[in-house]
Amino acid sequence: MPMSDTEHEGSMSTASTSAKLRPTRSDAQRQAILDAASLLFIEKGFGGTNINDIADAVGMTRTALYYYFASKESMLEALTEEVTEKASALAKSVSGRDELPADEALRLLIQQHANLILSHPVQFRVVERSESSLPEPHRSAAQNARRAVLDHFVRVIQRGIDGGQFRRGADARIAAFSIIGMCNWSAWWFDAGRGLDAGTVAETIADFGLRMLVPDKPRRARAASVEDAVGQMREALEVFESQVKRR
Amino acid sequence: MPMSDTEHEGSMSTASTSAKLRPTRSDAQRQAILDAASLLFIEKGFGGTNINDIADAVGMTRTALYYYFASKESMLEALTEEVTEKASALAKSVSGRDELPADEALRLLIQQHANLILSHPVQFRVVERSESSLPEPHRSAAQNARRAVLDHFVRVIQRGIDGGQFRRGADARIAAFSIIGMCNWSAWWFDAGRGLDAGTVAETIADFGLRMLVPDKPRRARAASVEDAVGQMREALEVFESQVKRR
Repeated sequence: MPMSDTEHEGSMSTASTSAKLRPTRSDAQRQAILDAASLLFIEKGFGGTNINDIADAVGMTRTALYYYFASKESMLEALTEEVTEKASALAKSVSGRDELPADEALRLLIQQHANLILSHPVQFRVVERSESSLPEPHRSAAQNARRAVLDHFVRVIQRGIDGGQFRRGADARIAAFSIIGMCNWSAWWFDAGRGLDAGTVAETIADFGLRMLVPDKPRRARAASVEDAVGQMREALEVFESQVKRR
Repeated sequence: MPMSDTEHEGSMSTASTSAKLRPTRSDAQRQAILDAASLLFIEKGFGGTNINDIADAVGMTRTALYYYFASKESMLEALTEEVTEKASALAKSVSGRDELPADEALRLLIQQHANLILSHPVQFRVVERSESSLPEPHRSAAQNARRAVLDHFVRVIQRGIDGGQFRRGADARIAAFSIIGMCNWSAWWFDAGRGLDAGTVAETIADFGLRMLVPDKPRRARAASVEDAVGQMREALEVFESQVKRR
């Protein structure tokens, strides 16, 4: 249902906001609706929120709102696409790159996934909480996307285990679930307003994920040079010397 | 609202179930109601479930159900206590034991927390999803309990960092959130019916959590013995020898 320009302008909260958004007003307005809807879905639950609440929160008329979304359900669909399908596309773009060493690939996978969640924490929580309200076929699509993310993580981790970059005994599936869990859970605790930088958090989580899988003892390099061996002996001699001196 | 024994018996789905539950029938029946309610809350959302659905699922009359719970909300309160407040009590019982080395304490904290989630995955998801439906003061109590769990984890991790068992540069808070996230997320993926044993999963997650925090290089033991030093030299000599032979 298209609306007149005047009606739209009139529904904006201030003229300056309207002016600022003009270049991509439609996209920005759509995003503003989704953001307001997310907050309300979290606060009142999907079932407890109605279209009027969302229109009020975003300062639009109900009629204007319908120009962007036909229903609450279609907002939930858009939110789900924004996080779940994006996550799957991002993971796919890395897991297929077999030329990347597995540890580099995993670091990239984790950073991308964590950054996606950290930049959409509220949307992510809405999607998780309201899955049962998502109509088909969107519900199945979301489940498939989530399974695809898992598969991409498992694939890269298994490649690292097989190639010796990761610990032999590690369970790739539990590791993938645990790493994805660390990332996803950040939606519940990360608050961009409270000092922590999203990029730093994503790097820290990636670092944790790699440490979980590092082999127990770096195997002695098969092609260690004579120089390496001499260095090792010198080191051992120093320990020997300091011990003898203590006596 | 108490009910007559006959009404109760009549409402049980089969006589054999009733007989089996007799010793602690009231507790078992209460638990059966909570389990049925959890599944329905997950499937239809808290707002979309009514008391009749729950009574039907558990094979009781609505009147019989009111003997156990006054409302949907009081079921949600009981579920929240079962997971959130239990988690806080468990964590508290470990974090105060300063005689435990920090790594042992953290392993215990993680195993306990993971085992709690893995034995109540559906309840945990309900509690997470339906927090906005929880009436006060239960909502604040749940938030406090969750904060307490975090504080106990941070305390033990920080003790390990300060004491040198854990990596110096690690951020205790992000580590605590990440570890709790790995545990909590298991409620979304663990399925006891599909081969994996909860105890093994809890141990694996604890192992991952500790590996995240292990110092980069074990510092050379300050009191290394002469025997250790000789051993190290011998090892280095072997490398030297094998390299020279290759030439």
